[in-house]
Amino acid sequence: MTIHEIAAFLQGEVVGNGNVEILRVAKIEEAGPGDLTFLANPQYQKYLGVTRASAVLVSSALEDAGPRNGSAPALIRVQDPYLAFIRVVKKITPVLDPFPTSIHPTAVVASSATLGTNVGLGAHVVVGENVTIGENTRIAPGCVIGQQARIGNDCLLYANVSVGHQCVIGHRVILQAGVVIGSDGFGFAPRKDGTYEKIPQLGIVVVEDDVEIGANCTIDRATLGETVLKRGTKLDNLIQIGHNVVVGENTVMAAQVGISGSTKIGKNVMIGGQVGTAGHIEIADRSIILGQSGVSKSLKEPGKSYFGTPAKDQRKAQRMEVALRNLPQLMETVKELQKKVEALTKAIEKKP
Amino acid sequence: MTIHEIAAFLQGEVVGNGNVEILRVAKIEEAGPGDLTFLANPQYQKYLGVTRASAVLVSSALEDAGPRNGSAPALIRVQDPYLAFIRVVKKITPVLDPFPTSIHPTAVVASSATLGTNVGLGAHVVVGENVTIGENTRIAPGCVIGQQARIGNDCLLYANVSVGHQCVIGHRVILQAGVVIGSDGFGFAPRKDGTYEKIPQLGIVVVEDDVEIGANCTIDRATLGETVLKRGTKLDNLIQIGHNVVVGENTVMAAQVGISGSTKIGKNVMIGGQVGTAGHIEIADRSIILGQSGVSKSLKEPGKSYFGTPAKDQRKAQRMEVALRNLPQLMETVKELQKKVEALTKAIEKKP
Amino acid sequence: MTIHEIAAFLQGEVVGNGNVEILRVAKIEEAGPGDLTFLANPQYQKYLGVTRASAVLVSSALEDAGPRNGSAPALIRVQDPYLAFIRVVKKITPVLDPFPTSIHPTAVVASSATLGTNVGLGAHVVVGENVTIGENTRIAPGCVIGQQARIGNDCLLYANVSVGHQCVIGHRVILQAGVVIGSDGFGFAPRKDGTYEKIPQLGIVVVEDDVEIGANCTIDRATLGETVLKRGTKLDNLIQIGHNVVVGENTVMAAQVGISGSTKIGKNVMIGGQVGTAGHIEIADRSIILGQSGVSKSLKEPGKSYFGTPAKDQRKAQRMEVALRNLPQLMETVKELQKKVEALTKAIEKKP
Repeated sequence: MTIHEIAAFLQGEVVGNGNVEILRVAKIEEAGPGDLTFLANPQYQKYLGVTRASAVLVSSALEDAGPRNGSAPALIRVQDPYLAFIRVVKKITPVLDPFPTSIHPTAVVASSATLGTNVGLGAHVVVGENVTIGENTRIAPGCVIGQQARIGNDCLLYANVSVGHQCVIGHRVILQAGVVIGSDGFGFAPRKDGTYEKIPQLGIVVVEDDVEIGANCTIDRATLGETVLKRGTKLDNLIQIGHNVVVGENTVMAAQVGISGSTKIGKNVMIGGQVGTAGHIEIADRSIILGQSGVSKSLKEPGKSYFGTPAKDQRKAQRMEVALRNLPQLMETVKELQKKVEALTKAIEKKP
Repeated sequence: MTIHEIAAFLQGEVVGNGNVEILRVAKIEEAGPGDLTFLANPQYQKYLGVTRASAVLVSSALEDAGPRNGSAPALIRVQDPYLAFIRVVKKITPVLDPFPTSIHPTAVVASSATLGTNVGLGAHVVVGENVTIGENTRIAPGCVIGQQARIGNDCLLYANVSVGHQCVIGHRVILQAGVVIGSDGFGFAPRKDGTYEKIPQLGIVVVEDDVEIGANCTIDRATLGETVLKRGTKLDNLIQIGHNVVVGENTVMAAQVGISGSTKIGKNVMIGGQVGTAGHIEIADRSIILGQSGVSKSLKEPGKSYFGTPAKDQRKAQRMEVALRNLPQLMETVKELQKKVEALTKAIEKKP
Repeated sequence: MTIHEIAAFLQGEVVGNGNVEILRVAKIEEAGPGDLTFLANPQYQKYLGVTRASAVLVSSALEDAGPRNGSAPALIRVQDPYLAFIRVVKKITPVLDPFPTSIHPTAVVASSATLGTNVGLGAHVVVGENVTIGENTRIAPGCVIGQQARIGNDCLLYANVSVGHQCVIGHRVILQAGVVIGSDGFGFAPRKDGTYEKIPQLGIVVVEDDVEIGANCTIDRATLGETVLKRGTKLDNLIQIGHNVVVGENTVMAAQVGISGSTKIGKNVMIGGQVGTAGHIEIADRSIILGQSGVSKSLKEPGKSYFGTPAKDQRKAQRMEVALRNLPQLMETVKELQKKVEALTKAIEKKP
């Protein structure tokens, strides 16, 4: 596609020579002739004058793009350069489709299972009794789908995923490799002799539409009822979701987060990497929890930011951190004050 | 079963109408007619007056259960309502058994392996040379059992578990999906040129009777000798146990805990989520370590609680946290004191 | 081998009776007759006088090894007792080789794949279209190798590993069980309605020669370009490496570390367990980051140690921790000072 054709596809405006053919996409600091790139983060504006790309997607709002001389790349002005870039990438990159498009002869499918049209099952996939899989869903080698599980349409399951019995997966769900859906919740009742009795975990996991779950995440089934990941939730890798947790719509979690049992998380919450939460608490909509925080109590007010273990208002946590950095100095100051006060006390005793 | 029949099964006492048939179990805040529920946590006592359940398991010690009028649920008084509830759940819920009850034709079993009676092996299970599997043990699809491994009786292995060569698993052990037993310990000797030489990991893992290990946990084999999880230990998901670690009887760990190599953990220890420990330390019996703590030194006194990174006595850590919250205020106070002391110094100099 | 033969093999020097046959290796505190052991850590020197081993590898630099009477073990003096021990262990221990040496009939290998000589593929291994696997590489049961992936010579892949499409693995790489290479990076662009659009992850992962990756680690593919683990890097279990991360040569990470996207880590860096880093930062060569630290900004000076969340110079962090431990006491001191200053103020007002 030429730069003009890309601009037309994006409903953007070309500044400079739009007749050059675009062959590839690249990052602005690495791009060369024939490459399309983008400028979204103002930090990268320094590259605009030096990039060797043939064209750069920039914001319509960008004011000073520098002179467009003969060797400078053409600009394509669009509303959101990054989203526009993604649209172009999807259009021009020859993407390899890693998923099976048919049912491999080594897949083991129970005769009671129901498969929609165009279901793809890779080698050695196992589909249990009374499972339902919707149309266009494709499942990579080594996945195991337990009895009575239901998987919707247009889902993608990467290698070695396991979906436990009776769990329910919506439409357009993506499960990265090694995900475990429906492991038993961690429930044990202490006996008097110090041993533990396992509490049967009889509930299920419900993963709603448009959820993506990262590699090797573990989502426990409910003790009774459902553990729920609501529509549009996105989880990074190695995340633990305890039994009976409910995660609201469009909530995102970075890698290695752990959510303890029965906690309810709101909508559009953002949780940084390695955050942990207590069980049986509530986290309000649009909360932002910074990385490595430990949330020990409910966060009830929507839209606030938190940091620390135990987690507190982000600005308060920052003030505490600043104070802590100055604490050794403060200790010196207090020691000096003590000496001065002692000296003053002696001095005043000597006065008449 | 009727309420009377359930009470008889539990050796409990009925208060109210015991002739109603119980059909299901549910949480107290969600229960309806035909449901049995329980009241264990005093926080939930508010639901006792409003639940629509047909019967509630309550403690024999519960004093004020409110009036038992016509529409109120019957009570069944028992010693431990939660344990009683579990016993009933197990008895009346039609639980789906997700494990294979026979040997699937696609399972690959070495001719030198020894399988007890009633062993179930799912599709694509692999059992290596000279493996022994005890009676009634059932192994879900995709599991791989390495050479010379020994697995006891009545174990349950969920999908895609791997048990490394020569490792030993006791009786009634439950391994959730994706567990890795017997990965190599992390042992490398630095060479002078900055590269590392791998130290061969020649030991094994021993998982004793009645242990449960959560999804995607990793238990490293010993360098020499054994990494041991003793009888009755319960691990939540995504936990890392380093080489040559010993975990004592009935110790429980919440998700994402990491125990570094050669650390010895006592009996009946409770470790919160995302805790990490140094290597080569000892943690005394009945220690309680709160979530996200980092244990850098041995905890020698049994039965104490710890919190923080580095972990310290829980009450001390709480006092430090309170002090830290007040630190910005303290800094103001010290500034004011400095001014006052300066003023006093000047004032006293002016005095005769 | 006799003690003399072992000393000759190691180019070491025997002190004591070198004619005894060595049958096994063991730790110094557990060794008995016929065992070879070693003394590397000075903490263990107390065992030298009491060990029942037949021979102990000690440093040439060891000064006082105590009297060598009839029952004392022979010493073999070498430059580095631990490395020497490893060399002997490798030589005398009959190590079970857990890897397949041929291609199991249940392995599914695409006809377009290219396998070198002596490749071993376990039961149910899946090798995709156009994959290349180098000579002597052996792959345990249940592994899935995606389309166009390239794996070098002499690699070992344990059970249930998945290598994503187009990813590149060097020579002598070891992947422990459950490793996921090439999961999608965590990239989503927010839409105005609060939902997220998935950013296609079109790059790959490159794992260079002599890298080892621990069980259930997850290594994300780049958005564009490459996520790279450079030569000699060693990762413990359950580690998350985000998209477009670059890890330098011979860098080691303990378990459960998380590296956020686009971060560049230098050479010979040492990262403790459960450390997390922000994205888009740089960590200088030979940095040492202690366990559970949270690195929020670039660490630019090579060879420094860091601790804390947010991570700071280790000595500074230690001073802060000491100060924090004394903070409750400081608060008392300041209260007393306040009283004294008030008293002084009153006293001085009363003076003429």
